[in-house]
Amino acid sequence: MALLHYPVLGKTGETIASAITNLDLHDIARASKTYGVQSFQVIIPLDDQRRIAQEICEHWTSGPGSRSNPHRKTSFDLIQISPDIESALNHICQQTGSFPQTIATSANIIDGSISYTTCRQLIQSIEPNLLIFGTAWGIAPEFMDQCDYILKPIQSQSSYNHLSVRSAVSIVLDRLVGTFERFTDH
Amino acid sequence: MALLHYPVLGKTGETIASAITNLDLHDIARASKTYGVQSFQVIIPLDDQRRIAQEICEHWTSGPGSRSNPHRKTSFDLIQISPDIESALNHICQQTGSFPQTIATSANIIDGSISYTTCRQLIQSIEPNLLIFGTAWGIAPEFMDQCDYILKPIQSQSSYNHLSVRSAVSIVLDRLVGTFERFTDH
Repeated sequence: MALLHYPVLGKTGETIASAITNLDLHDIARASKTYGVQSFQVIIPLDDQRRIAQEICEHWTSGPGSRSNPHRKTSFDLIQISPDIESALNHICQQTGSFPQTIATSANIIDGSISYTTCRQLIQSIEPNLLIFGTAWGIAPEFMDQCDYILKPIQSQSSYNHLSVRSAVSIVLDRLVGTFERFTDH
Repeated sequence: MALLHYPVLGKTGETIASAITNLDLHDIARASKTYGVQSFQVIIPLDDQRRIAQEICEHWTSGPGSRSNPHRKTSFDLIQISPDIESALNHICQQTGSFPQTIATSANIIDGSISYTTCRQLIQSIEPNLLIFGTAWGIAPEFMDQCDYILKPIQSQSSYNHLSVRSAVSIVLDRLVGTFERFTDH
Protein backbone atom coordinates (compact mmCIF):
# COMPACT_ATOMS: atom_id res chain seq x y z
CA MET A 1 0.00 0.00 0.00
CA ALA A 2 1.24 3.50 -0.76
CA LEU A 3 -0.26 6.92 -0.10
CA LEU A 4 1.12 9.50 -2.50
CA HIS A 5 1.47 13.19 -1.58
CA TYR A 6 3.42 14.12 -4.75
CA PRO A 7 2.83 14.32 -7.67
CA VAL A 8 -0.91 14.70 -7.13
CA LEU A 9 -3.53 17.01 -8.61
CA GLY A 10 -4.74 20.20 -6.91
CA LYS A 11 -8.24 21.61 -7.05
CA THR A 12 -7.71 23.28 -10.43
CA GLY A 13 -5.81 20.38 -12.01
CA GLU A 14 -2.26 21.61 -11.37
CA THR A 15 0.38 19.23 -10.00
CA ILE A 16 1.00 19.81 -6.29
CA ALA A 17 2.59 18.29 -3.17
CA SER A 18 -0.15 17.81 -0.57
CA ALA A 19 0.09 18.07 3.23
CA ILE A 20 -0.13 15.18 5.69
CA THR A 21 -3.58 14.39 7.10
CA ASN A 22 -3.26 12.73 10.51
CA LEU A 23 -6.32 10.49 10.12
CA ASP A 24 -5.08 9.23 6.72
CA LEU A 25 -2.20 7.59 8.57
CA HIS A 26 -4.45 6.13 11.27
CA ASP A 27 -7.28 4.88 9.07
CA ILE A 28 -5.11 3.48 6.28
CA ALA A 29 -2.68 1.82 8.72
CA ARG A 30 -5.63 0.21 10.55
CA ALA A 31 -7.27 -0.97 7.30
CA SER A 32 -3.90 -2.23 6.02
CA LYS A 33 -3.33 -4.27 9.17
CA THR A 34 -6.90 -5.63 9.03
CA TYR A 35 -6.50 -6.86 5.45
CA GLY A 36 -2.98 -8.30 5.78
CA VAL A 37 -1.07 -5.58 3.88
CA GLN A 38 2.69 -6.04 4.48
CA SER A 39 3.78 -2.39 4.42
CA PHE A 40 2.24 1.06 4.13
CA GLN A 41 4.50 3.50 2.28
CA VAL A 42 3.73 7.17 2.95
CA ILE A 43 5.37 9.06 0.09
CA ILE A 44 5.94 12.71 0.88
CA PRO A 45 8.71 14.88 -0.55
CA LEU A 46 8.37 18.05 1.59
CA ASP A 47 10.88 17.90 4.47
CA ASP A 48 8.70 19.64 7.07
CA GLN A 49 5.68 17.49 6.21
CA ARG A 50 7.80 14.36 6.34
CA ARG A 51 9.01 15.37 9.80
CA ILE A 52 5.40 15.83 10.98
CA ALA A 53 4.52 12.38 9.64
CA GLN A 54 7.58 10.93 11.37
CA GLU A 55 6.62 12.51 14.69
CA ILE A 56 3.06 11.16 14.48
CA CYS A 57 4.41 7.69 13.72
CA GLU A 58 6.94 7.80 16.56
CA HIS A 59 4.21 8.78 19.01
CA TRP A 60 2.32 5.58 18.19
CA THR A 61 5.19 3.17 17.57
CA SER A 62 7.59 4.05 20.41
CA GLY A 63 6.11 7.04 22.30
CA PRO A 64 3.22 7.34 24.78
CA GLY A 65 0.68 6.17 22.18
CA SER A 66 2.38 2.79 21.87
CA ARG A 67 1.72 2.13 25.55
CA SER A 68 -1.80 3.61 25.73
CA ASN A 69 -2.97 1.80 22.57
CA PRO A 70 -0.95 -1.29 21.59
CA HIS A 71 -3.37 -2.10 18.73
CA ARG A 72 -2.62 1.28 17.18
CA LYS A 73 1.10 0.57 17.52
CA THR A 74 0.65 -2.71 15.59
CA SER A 75 -0.90 -0.86 12.66
CA PHE A 76 1.54 2.08 12.72
CA ASP A 77 4.43 -0.42 12.66
CA LEU A 78 3.47 -0.99 8.99
CA ILE A 79 4.26 2.62 8.06
CA GLN A 80 7.45 3.56 6.20
CA ILE A 81 7.85 7.22 5.27
CA SER A 82 9.66 7.84 1.98
CA PRO A 83 10.54 11.03 0.11
CA ASP A 84 9.69 9.52 -3.30
CA ILE A 85 8.43 6.43 -5.07
CA GLU A 86 11.97 5.20 -5.83
CA SER A 87 12.79 5.03 -2.11
CA ALA A 88 9.52 3.20 -1.45
CA LEU A 89 10.22 0.65 -4.20
CA ASN A 90 13.78 0.15 -2.94
CA HIS A 91 12.52 -0.38 0.58
CA ILE A 92 10.05 -3.06 -0.57
CA CYS A 93 12.80 -4.71 -2.66
CA GLN A 94 15.01 -4.87 0.43
CA GLN A 95 12.18 -6.48 2.41
CA THR A 96 11.01 -8.96 -0.23
CA GLY A 97 13.91 -9.46 -2.67
CA SER A 98 11.92 -8.09 -5.64
CA PHE A 99 10.79 -4.73 -6.93
CA PRO A 100 6.98 -4.60 -6.70
CA GLN A 101 4.66 -4.12 -9.63
CA THR A 102 2.84 -0.82 -9.23
CA ILE A 103 -0.97 -0.60 -9.34
CA ALA A 104 -2.31 2.95 -9.45
CA THR A 105 -5.87 3.81 -8.39
CA SER A 106 -8.12 6.52 -9.76
CA ALA A 107 -11.67 7.81 -9.23
CA ASN A 108 -11.92 8.19 -13.01
CA ILE A 109 -12.51 5.70 -15.80
CA ILE A 110 -9.18 5.26 -17.60
CA ASP A 111 -8.57 3.20 -20.76
CA GLY A 112 -6.86 -0.11 -20.09
CA SER A 113 -7.59 -0.20 -16.38
CA ILE A 114 -7.82 -3.65 -14.79
CA SER A 115 -10.86 -5.17 -13.08
CA TYR A 116 -11.05 -6.13 -9.40
CA THR A 117 -11.03 -9.79 -10.45
CA THR A 118 -7.78 -9.35 -12.38
CA CYS A 119 -6.27 -7.38 -9.53
CA ARG A 120 -7.33 -10.03 -7.02
CA GLN A 121 -5.46 -12.63 -9.08
CA LEU A 122 -2.44 -10.35 -9.44
CA ILE A 123 -2.00 -9.80 -5.73
CA GLN A 124 -2.35 -13.50 -4.96
CA SER A 125 1.05 -13.96 -6.64
CA ILE A 126 4.06 -14.42 -4.37
CA GLU A 127 5.70 -11.39 -6.02
CA PRO A 128 5.13 -8.06 -4.27
CA ASN A 129 2.65 -5.49 -5.55
CA LEU A 130 2.28 -1.87 -4.53
CA LEU A 131 -1.27 -0.45 -4.57
CA ILE A 132 -1.00 3.35 -4.81
CA PHE A 133 -3.63 5.90 -3.73
CA GLY A 134 -3.33 9.64 -4.36
CA THR A 135 -4.21 12.35 -1.84
CA ALA A 136 -5.82 15.71 -2.82
CA TRP A 137 -7.52 15.39 -6.26
CA GLY A 138 -5.72 12.13 -7.12
CA ILE A 139 -2.52 10.83 -8.69
CA ALA A 140 -1.07 13.12 -11.40
CA PRO A 141 -1.19 11.67 -14.94
CA GLU A 142 2.60 11.77 -15.39
CA PHE A 143 2.95 9.43 -12.39
CA MET A 144 -0.01 7.25 -13.42
CA ASP A 145 1.58 6.68 -16.85
CA GLN A 146 4.62 5.09 -15.23
CA CYS A 147 2.65 2.54 -13.19
CA ASP A 148 2.35 -1.06 -14.38
CA TYR A 149 -1.42 -1.20 -13.89
CA ILE A 150 -4.35 1.08 -13.16
CA LEU A 151 -7.27 -0.31 -11.14
CA LYS A 152 -10.85 0.49 -12.21
CA PRO A 153 -12.59 3.17 -10.11
CA ILE A 154 -14.99 2.23 -7.29
CA GLN A 155 -18.03 3.68 -9.13
CA SER A 156 -21.24 3.31 -7.24
CA GLN A 157 -24.62 3.69 -8.88
CA SER A 158 -24.79 7.35 -7.87
CA SER A 159 -23.24 10.14 -9.86
CA TYR A 160 -21.56 11.50 -6.72
CA ASN A 161 -17.89 10.49 -7.03
CA HIS A 162 -16.19 12.12 -4.05
CA LEU A 163 -15.16 9.53 -1.48
CA SER A 164 -12.35 10.35 0.94
CA VAL A 165 -9.08 8.53 0.27
CA ARG A 166 -9.63 6.82 3.66
CA SER A 167 -12.95 5.39 2.44
CA ALA A 168 -11.55 4.48 -0.98
CA VAL A 169 -8.64 2.53 0.52
CA SER A 170 -11.00 0.63 2.84
CA ILE A 171 -13.43 -0.29 0.05
CA VAL A 172 -10.70 -1.34 -2.40
CA LEU A 173 -8.97 -3.53 0.21
CA ASP A 174 -12.28 -5.20 1.04
CA ARG A 175 -12.96 -5.84 -2.66
CA LEU A 176 -9.46 -7.24 -3.25
CA VAL A 177 -8.86 -9.19 -0.05
CA GLY A 178 -12.12 -9.31 1.92
CA THR A 179 -14.20 -12.44 2.27
CA PHE A 180 -17.86 -12.49 3.11
CA GLU A 181 -20.82 -14.62 2.29
CA ARG A 182 -21.50 -13.00 -1.12
CA PHE A 183 -18.37 -14.81 -2.28
CA THR A 184 -18.62 -18.06 -0.37
CA ASP A 185 -22.30 -18.93 0.17
CA HIS A 186 -23.78 -18.01 -3.19
CA MET B 1 -27.47 5.75 8.23
CA ALA B 2 -26.89 6.73 11.84
CA LEU B 3 -23.74 7.46 13.81
CA LEU B 4 -24.31 6.92 17.53
CA HIS B 5 -22.40 8.87 20.19
CA TYR B 6 -24.50 7.55 23.12
CA PRO B 7 -24.88 4.93 24.50
CA VAL B 8 -21.53 3.56 23.32
CA LEU B 9 -18.75 1.66 25.07
CA GLY B 10 -15.61 3.31 26.43
CA LYS B 11 -12.14 1.81 26.52
CA THR B 12 -12.80 -0.20 29.67
CA GLY B 13 -16.31 -1.33 28.70
CA GLU B 14 -18.29 1.35 30.55
CA THR B 15 -21.17 3.15 28.81
CA ILE B 16 -20.17 6.66 27.71
CA ALA B 17 -21.21 9.57 25.48
CA SER B 18 -18.42 10.14 22.94
CA ALA B 19 -17.26 13.43 21.38
CA ILE B 20 -17.77 14.53 17.79
CA THR B 21 -14.96 13.68 15.33
CA ASN B 22 -14.95 16.15 12.45
CA LEU B 23 -13.80 13.66 9.82
CA ASP B 24 -16.52 11.18 10.83
CA LEU B 25 -19.06 13.70 9.55
CA HIS B 26 -17.12 14.33 6.32
CA ASP B 27 -16.23 10.76 5.45
CA ILE B 28 -19.58 9.21 6.36
CA ALA B 29 -21.57 11.97 4.61
CA ARG B 30 -19.47 11.51 1.46
CA ALA B 31 -19.80 7.70 1.55
CA SER B 32 -23.56 8.03 2.24
CA LYS B 33 -24.01 10.31 -0.77
CA THR B 34 -21.93 8.00 -2.95
CA TYR B 35 -24.03 4.94 -2.11
CA GLY B 36 -27.45 6.59 -2.28
CA VAL B 37 -28.21 6.79 1.45
CA GLN B 38 -31.23 9.08 2.02
CA SER B 39 -30.26 10.61 5.36
CA PHE B 40 -27.36 10.54 7.81
CA GLN B 41 -28.51 10.87 11.43
CA VAL B 42 -25.80 12.04 13.83
CA ILE B 43 -27.07 11.08 17.30
CA ILE B 44 -25.40 13.04 20.07
CA PRO B 45 -26.97 13.89 23.43
CA LEU B 46 -24.40 16.34 24.84
CA ASP B 47 -25.54 19.92 24.16
CA ASP B 48 -22.06 21.41 23.61
CA GLN B 49 -21.04 18.57 21.29
CA ARG B 50 -24.28 18.88 19.37
CA ARG B 51 -23.60 22.60 18.91
CA ILE B 52 -20.13 21.83 17.54
CA ALA B 53 -21.62 19.33 15.10
CA GLN B 54 -24.24 21.90 14.07
CA GLU B 55 -21.58 24.55 13.45
CA ILE B 56 -19.51 22.18 11.31
CA CYS B 57 -22.60 21.29 9.29
CA GLU B 58 -23.63 24.92 8.81
CA HIS B 59 -20.15 25.81 7.54
CA TRP B 60 -20.55 23.27 4.73
CA THR B 61 -24.28 23.57 4.00
CA SER B 62 -24.82 27.34 4.12
CA GLY B 63 -21.49 28.95 5.16
CA PRO B 64 -18.24 29.57 3.26
CA GLY B 65 -17.67 25.84 2.75
CA SER B 66 -20.85 25.53 0.70
CA ARG B 67 -19.44 27.98 -1.83
CA SER B 68 -15.83 26.73 -1.85
CA ASN B 69 -16.86 23.08 -2.19
CA PRO B 70 -20.37 22.45 -3.56
CA HIS B 71 -19.78 18.68 -3.62
CA ARG B 72 -19.15 18.73 0.11
CA LYS B 73 -22.37 20.70 0.57
CA THR B 74 -24.31 18.00 -1.29
CA SER B 75 -23.08 15.34 1.12
CA PHE B 76 -23.50 17.46 4.27
CA ASP B 77 -27.10 18.17 3.20
CA LEU B 78 -27.83 14.55 4.21
CA ILE B 79 -26.91 15.20 7.86
CA GLN B 80 -29.55 15.57 10.55
CA ILE B 81 -28.31 16.05 14.10
CA SER B 82 -30.50 14.46 16.78
CA PRO B 83 -30.18 14.27 20.58
CA ASP B 84 -31.37 10.65 20.73
CA ILE B 85 -32.54 7.70 18.65
CA GLU B 86 -36.23 8.54 19.17
CA SER B 87 -35.75 11.93 17.50
CA ALA B 88 -33.87 10.31 14.64
CA LEU B 89 -36.62 7.72 14.12
CA ASN B 90 -39.30 10.42 14.26
CA HIS B 91 -37.43 12.49 11.69
CA ILE B 92 -37.21 9.55 9.29
CA CYS B 93 -40.90 8.80 9.85
CA GLN B 94 -41.77 12.40 8.95
CA GLN B 95 -39.70 12.10 5.77
CA THR B 96 -40.90 8.68 4.65
CA GLY B 97 -44.22 8.03 6.38
CA SER B 98 -42.91 4.98 8.28
CA PHE B 99 -40.70 4.29 11.25
CA PRO B 100 -37.55 2.57 10.00
CA GLN B 101 -36.40 -0.87 11.06
CA THR B 102 -33.13 -0.56 12.94
CA ILE B 103 -30.03 -2.52 11.94
CA ALA B 104 -27.17 -2.31 14.44
CA THR B 105 -23.56 -3.02 13.47
CA SER B 106 -20.84 -4.54 15.60
CA ALA B 107 -17.20 -5.55 15.25
CA ASN B 108 -18.01 -8.65 17.30
CA ILE B 109 -19.73 -11.93 16.42
CA ILE B 110 -23.19 -11.82 18.02
CA ASP B 111 -25.75 -14.64 18.06
CA GLY B 112 -28.59 -14.15 15.61
CA SER B 113 -26.85 -11.50 13.50
CA ILE B 114 -27.91 -11.32 9.86
CA SER B 115 -25.71 -11.90 6.80
CA TYR B 116 -24.85 -9.26 4.18
CA THR B 117 -27.09 -11.12 1.72
CA THR B 118 -30.07 -10.92 4.07
CA CYS B 119 -29.35 -7.28 4.80
CA ARG B 120 -29.04 -6.50 1.07
CA GLN B 121 -32.53 -7.96 0.57
CA LEU B 122 -33.87 -6.09 3.58
CA ILE B 123 -32.74 -2.67 2.37
CA GLN B 124 -34.12 -3.26 -1.12
CA SER B 125 -37.59 -3.01 0.42
CA ILE B 126 -39.49 0.23 -0.06
CA GLU B 127 -39.78 0.56 3.74
CA PRO B 128 -37.05 2.64 5.41
CA ASN B 129 -34.17 1.04 7.31
CA LEU B 130 -31.70 2.69 9.64
CA LEU B 131 -28.16 1.24 9.67
CA ILE B 132 -26.51 2.24 12.95
CA PHE B 133 -22.77 2.49 13.66
CA GLY B 134 -21.29 3.17 17.09
CA THR B 135 -18.39 5.52 17.79
CA ALA B 136 -15.72 4.84 20.48
CA TRP B 137 -15.64 1.09 21.32
CA GLY B 138 -19.00 0.40 19.68
CA ILE B 139 -22.75 0.40 20.42
CA ALA B 140 -23.61 -0.42 24.05
CA PRO B 141 -25.40 -3.78 24.54
CA GLU B 142 -28.53 -2.18 26.08
CA PHE B 143 -29.01 -0.21 22.83
CA MET B 144 -28.11 -3.16 20.60
CA ASP B 145 -30.79 -5.30 22.31
CA GLN B 146 -33.50 -2.88 21.21
CA CYS B 147 -32.55 -2.93 17.52
CA ASP B 148 -34.55 -5.05 15.08
CA TYR B 149 -31.46 -6.62 13.50
CA ILE B 150 -27.71 -6.89 14.05
CA LEU B 151 -25.46 -7.13 10.99
CA LYS B 152 -22.56 -9.60 11.00
CA PRO B 153 -19.11 -8.04 11.59
CA ILE B 154 -16.76 -7.23 8.69
CA GLN B 155 -14.20 -9.86 9.78
CA SER B 156 -11.23 -10.05 7.51
CA GLN B 157 -8.90 -13.03 7.52
CA SER B 158 -6.54 -11.28 9.95
CA SER B 159 -6.98 -11.34 13.69
CA TYR B 160 -6.63 -7.54 13.81
CA ASN B 161 -10.15 -6.20 14.35
CA HIS B 162 -9.70 -2.45 14.77
CA LEU B 163 -11.02 -0.56 11.75
CA SER B 164 -12.05 3.07 12.17
CA VAL B 165 -15.79 3.69 12.07
CA ARG B 166 -15.12 5.70 8.88
CA SER B 167 -13.61 2.61 7.23
CA ALA B 168 -16.30 0.30 8.59
CA VAL B 169 -19.13 2.46 7.22
CA SER B 170 -17.47 2.60 3.79
CA ILE B 171 -16.92 -1.15 3.59
CA VAL B 172 -20.42 -2.05 4.81
CA LEU B 173 -22.07 0.35 2.34
CA ASP B 174 -20.02 -1.12 -0.50
CA ARG B 175 -21.01 -4.66 0.53
CA LEU B 176 -24.69 -3.74 0.82
CA VAL B 177 -25.13 -1.39 -2.12
CA GLY B 178 -21.94 -1.49 -4.20
CA THR B 179 -21.79 -3.07 -7.61
CA PHE B 180 -18.63 -4.25 -9.28
CA GLU B 181 -17.65 -7.02 -11.59
CA ARG B 182 -17.43 -9.70 -8.90
CA PHE B 183 -21.22 -9.45 -8.79
CA THR B 184 -22.09 -8.75 -12.39
CA ASP B 185 -19.51 -10.41 -14.66
CA HIS B 186 -19.10 -13.76 -12.93
